[in-house]
Parts: sequence; structure tokens; C-alpha cells
Amino acid sequence: MAPSTTDEVLASAADVKLLLTGEKQAALSKEEQLALIRVNLAEFLNPEIIEKAIDEGRHPRIYWGTATTGRPHCGYFVPALKIAQLLAAGCNVVILLADIHGFLDNLKSPYEIVEYRAQYYRYAVTAILEAVGVPTEKLEFVLGSSYQKSPEYIMDVYKLCSVVSEHDAKKAGAEVVKQSDNAPLSGLLYPILQVLDEEHLKVDGQFGGVDQRKLFAAAKEWLPKLGYKERAHLMNPMVPGLQGSKMSSSDPDSKIDLLDPPEVVARKIKKAEAIPKVAEGNGLLAFTEFVLLPAAEFQGRHFTVDRERDGLEPLVYKDVAQMRADYEADILSPQLLKPAISKALNELMAPIQAAFQASKEWQEVTLKAYPVEDKKKKVKKVKDKGTRYPAGAAPPKDGDGAAPAAQ
Amino acid sequence: MAPSTTDEVLASAADVKLLLTGEKQAALSKEEQLALIRVNLAEFLNPEIIEKAIDEGRHPRIYWGTATTGRPHCGYFVPALKIAQLLAAGCNVVILLADIHGFLDNLKSPYEIVEYRAQYYRYAVTAILEAVGVPTEKLEFVLGSSYQKSPEYIMDVYKLCSVVSEHDAKKAGAEVVKQSDNAPLSGLLYPILQVLDEEHLKVDGQFGGVDQRKLFAAAKEWLPKLGYKERAHLMNPMVPGLQGSKMSSSDPDSKIDLLDPPEVVARKIKKAEAIPKVAEGNGLLAFTEFVLLPAAEFQGRHFTVDRERDGLEPLVYKDVAQMRADYEADILSPQLLKPAISKALNELMAPIQAAFQASKEWQEVTLKAYPVEDKKKKVKKVKDKGTRYPAGAAPPKDGDGAAPAAQ
Repeated sequence: MAPSTTDEVLASAADVKLLLTGEKQAALSKEEQLALIRVNLAEFLNPEIIEKAIDEGRHPRIYWGTATTGRPHCGYFVPALKIAQLLAAGCNVVILLADIHGFLDNLKSPYEIVEYRAQYYRYAVTAILEAVGVPTEKLEFVLGSSYQKSPEYIMDVYKLCSVVSEHDAKKAGAEVVKQSDNAPLSGLLYPILQVLDEEHLKVDGQFGGVDQRKLFAAAKEWLPKLGYKERAHLMNPMVPGLQGSKMSSSDPDSKIDLLDPPEVVARKIKKAEAIPKVAEGNGLLAFTEFVLLPAAEFQGRHFTVDRERDGLEPLVYKDVAQMRADYEADILSPQLLKPAISKALNELMAPIQAAFQASKEWQEVTLKAYPVEDKKKKVKKVKDKGTRYPAGAAPPKDGDGAAPAAQ
Repeated sequence: MAPSTTDEVLASAADVKLLLTGEKQAALSKEEQLALIRVNLAEFLNPEIIEKAIDEGRHPRIYWGTATTGRPHCGYFVPALKIAQLLAAGCNVVILLADIHGFLDNLKSPYEIVEYRAQYYRYAVTAILEAVGVPTEKLEFVLGSSYQKSPEYIMDVYKLCSVVSEHDAKKAGAEVVKQSDNAPLSGLLYPILQVLDEEHLKVDGQFGGVDQRKLFAAAKEWLPKLGYKERAHLMNPMVPGLQGSKMSSSDPDSKIDLLDPPEVVARKIKKAEAIPKVAEGNGLLAFTEFVLLPAAEFQGRHFTVDRERDGLEPLVYKDVAQMRADYEADILSPQLLKPAISKALNELMAPIQAAFQASKEWQEVTLKAYPVEDKKKKVKKVKDKGTRYPAGAAPPKDGDGAAPAAQ
């Protein structure tokens, strides 16, 4: 009941994929809820905390945090799809828009811009979730600045800093914070904040990538030091970027913006690395597994690969296992896969772009959040700084692929 | 005009000692003010900032911070006498009662106790200053908790942590914060706070011991990073404890409490280490130099050593130079010096104890701040933790003497 390896999780996930099709609104049994919560997770620490919430007749409250920095790109679909599954499983999901962290990340920008970015994130994440058709009434956005400057919070920051050693703070942030003596002190402070967020957001659990594992382990250990209860931790696996392991920050095409027009999406996907017959570490297959397949399921569809050019019937996939097998056998060649991905991704993005076109407010916020001079740079170099970049929504590391590397 | 060594300072100090006698209330010239500000300082960084304040017709605003932990003992007379001189020189002095730091120092104590301790400190420091007859209307007490939890302050904490490296924070606290990987993270945070206090208390300068030098240097460098102006820094020298360099935490007699009765004071002074003819590093002579001589001057008196037992005229001292010479020549033997110190200290403490006896409030606060179980321990082991223990008011390090070692 508490799978700890990816394989086990995926096995149990396969059993409940049907839940996503059609009657996703119907009342789920506790087991169905838990199975849906586990879909595609690499690890789930203290699931009993979530089970207890369900037993108590509550909607488990789970938070996911993201620093409001650069424009959310297609890599954000990965955590978004997991969030969609959590919502579908009856969870209350809190999205922490870490605006203070966004501000600290680039002190040169005026604070105003960060506020607009937080608004942009809110529009974008909502649109992504609506695009897959998940009900969002149990979705809540919280600005970091709404409580991270409060006296109660800051006293907890001071207190936790008094009972956590420098060594342990460094260890907790080892995979998400740049580790060097010359790194800013904030890197040691961020794990403290992220752990306290669990208490101050009053959640049952936190969701992030497996790169957050050490930090989540620290949270389990640290919160009780202040008399607070420990939380559950849900981690999705790291998903390779579209460029696989070869990353290049100099390539502006390595990231797909949510508002990129279809032909740009097609061009970027075409440029993505995809070694024929090698499914392992393949960014396109990973993106399909963690985004396009779950999204298709939400919409009651399957992932379809057109082969009309070769005069063949389309390939239709319900799960990634068959896709991998076909890819390794070269039945599903990169040449076939890429246009199928472009098509599915453009379909997924169409309602997001329609929502953008329909919203004067969102358009205005976009101009203010990302003024033209920023756009020119296109690939803004945002350094991996602090834990406010939870897996799945990691800001582009230098040379990030279209899907963030840190998922 | 900007002496940087102790000798130079003391030389200029000698010229103005007369200022302290008699007409200390009279209006001083700028030069007299500055000279009085410099008395007994080991170092004075950026004195031009203080000069400018005087030129602008303002009272230079200077802060001194102390964590509200154990009961202030006689070692607190050292910074108190310097504060008395600053007040006499026309400065506004802010005493920061760092209650949050006091609380963090011992998270096991309820917060209430820290509040009472802050009140105790306020009573004690005021009584010390009144005992030497300095006007205290330009003295201001500020509780750390009154602004260190404010949104403006905490944003500055976050900001400064983003522009100061872990290495630099460690360097700044090197002499005042325990340096180890296992030390709490707060040790790295305290330098950040102490630097920001200068801005948030809106002072022209900060006063502390030379052990604060690295931290003060950091303050000069860090504040401009946030667009704040740099401040002057006034440092008094380190004064050896009554036990000289040999310290023993197991000896409850090594510290003299402000409320110790005369016979206890006499016993403790009698036990103090004093190698005949060795003036260097002699805690008794140091205490006389930095406390008893300036106090006598404030009161228009001289420091007198009775020799009636030997049928000789008393030795009368106006400055420490003659005392050192006599001590080295064994004219002023430890046997003569000790009762003279006991007498002078008891005279200095008499009005403090009278104030305590006259104040039901102070007595009640004392019982609440330092409950009986604490008193039994007598020498409370307070670890040197963080920069909230500025020189001169350093909490007893393990085995501190009657006068704190870190002055």
C-alpha cells in the first residue's frame, strides 16, 4: 500500500487510469482516490497522513510551490498534470506563488514586476488545468508575500534557524541550492522557509520532484522540533528535457512557451533530440508519458500517431509501455513521433492560447510581467537558486530543455 | 583627529577627563564632544559620520545592543560607563534589548520570561547610569521584538541574505559566533540582523567591543548593497575578567551580581587573581580603568586607596597610568588594591541596590525574570551565540570572570 519505487507506483497507476476517463467527476472510493494520487509518482513519503485525512472525511490539502520568475513554459505541464490528478482525486491543492523568492532571485527588477509575474503564473497555471478539463474549484493560489512577512512566520524562521545546524540546512538543500561558500546566504535560508510553508499553509502534504527528497526528509525532521506535525511528501520523477541530457542554454528553441504558435511548436519539437530505438532518457517519450498521455486520458482520448503518409493505420496508445516497445522496435520512429507530439501539444495549448486571447487582463499582465526588453533575451538565464523551484516547475537551469530537467 | 590605536585614544582622552568633573552638564564644544566620545575607545571607524551629525546640530544617535539573557553583572559597568560618556557628550543613545535573541538563545524558556528579562535589563542599565549621575533623558530603550518581526525588517533580512555570501556572513561573525558546521544556522543570520539594526534603528553609529570589528566592517560594506548609508563604529577594548585569563565556570564567585551585598562583593574581589607587580592583563586594574576611574570622575571624586593599616596617607588616583606605575613598583599591592576596589564598587552599587529596594516593580520583575530554580544554578551556562552579545555586554562565556572577558 506504500509503494516506494517508480515501478510499483506505475503498476498501481495503470490500474486506475480508467478512472480518468469519462466519469472523473464521480465519487471515488478511498482506494481509488489514493491510487489516483499515486499515479506517476516516484515516491510517496508517509502516505498514511493522506489516508488519515480521507478517513476523516476531509479533502487532503497538498501544496506545490513555484517561484514567480521566468515565463512558465511547457515543462510546467508535468507538475500541472500531476496537480490535475490530485484535484481529480479529491485533494485541495494549494499553489504557492513564491513572489518573494522571485523578487530575491532578481533584486534588480522592481517589486511591481514580480507582482505581475505572480499574476501571470496564476493565469497560466489555471489555464493549463482548465485545458485538461479538470475542475479547479478545489484549487487555491497563495502568494508567498501574503504570509512570509508575518510576525508569526518570521518568528518561526528565527526559531527554526536556532535549532537547525548550518550543516543540516546545507544538506537539505544539496540538490536544489547551489552549494558553494560564495553562494548567497539565502540558499541556506530557503530550506527553512520551504519547510515552514507546510505548517503555515496548513497542508497535509507537499508535492515536488524527487530532487526535493532531502528537503522533504528535512521537513519531516524539523517541523516536530517546533512542535509542528510532519507532513506527507509526494514526489514525481525527474523527467528528461526535450533535448535529452545534452542541454544548451544558447539555443532559444529548447523551450516551448505556452503562447508559442503551432508552427513554432512544430519547429522546436522537430529539433528535439530523439535517438532512434533508444527509449531510455528520451525526452519526447518522457513528455508524452507525463503530459500528453495523462492529458489525453483526462479528455477521454488516446494518444494517436498518424501514419497516413505511409498508407498505414494510425498507432493508438493508452499507455507508455506499448509506446516504448514500439519505439525500441522502430515501429514508432522519431519521424512519426515528432509530428504526433506537435499535434497533441498544440491541441493541449489551443485552449490556453484561446483563454489568453480572450482575456485583456492576462494580456496586459503579460506585457507588464515580461516587458519587451526581457522578451528579446528570450532565454533568460535564471540561476538555480533555492528550493522555491520545486521539481516539475524548476526554473530553466542553464541549458534547460523544453521540459525542465528537474522534474 | 582620528586616532586608531588605544594609546592615541587614551592620550586624547586624558585631555578631556576634566570635562567629566563638575560641569559635565555644561554645553560642550564640538571638539570637547568628540574627545569625550573617544575616551577609552580602542577604535573609532568613520568618525566623520558623527562629526557631521554634530555639524548639522543634531545629537549623534548611537546604539548598543544586548541580548536579554542572564542577569547583567558587574561586567556591564564597562559598556555602561562608555554609554554614560556618550550621553555626557550629547549623544542620543539607543539601547537595543534584543529579546528575540534572548528567546532564541534558550527556546526552552517561555517567551514571557524573556519579556521580564528585558524589563530587568532596562531597570538595571538605567540604575547603573543613574548611579554614576549621568542624565538619562537622551537614553532610549528599544525592544528587538518591536521591529525585528515587521514586514519591512524581514524583507531586508531576506534581501541582505540574497546579496551576502555564506562565506562573508561567517567571516563577519567569526569572533562573536561559534564557528562550526554543527552550529545553528542562526549564527549566520545574526550578523545580518545586527547590520540591519543600524538602519532600522536609524542611528549614526553603533557601539560595541573590538571583538565586533569584523561585524562592523561587514556593516560598512553590506548596508550600501541595499541602498542604505554606512554608519560609524565605536569600539571599546577588550577588558580582562577579574580572574585574568584563567577562567573557571565552576566558580560561582567569578561574577559579581549587581545586587550582591557588600560582604559578598568583598569576598569575590578578594578571590580575584592579581599577580603582584604585573599590571598587564590584570583584571582588577582593568576594571578600575574602565569603570571605577570614569565613575569617580563622573562623581567629581578620585579613586582612593586606604593605607591606614600601615599608618600611611591614602593613595589618590586620577588616572590609570599612575596606578599601573605604583602597582608595578609594588607601592600599590594587591592587598591594598582589593579592599579599595571593593569599597569603590560597593559605593557604585549602593544607589543601584537602593533603587532596587525602593521599586516593588523591579523586585517583582526580578522574581519573574529569574525564578528561584535559575538562581540556584547561579552560574548559568550561556553559550556565546551570535552577535547579539556585543562586546562589553557579552554574556558570560564558559568561565567568564566578574568583568566579561569580551569587552
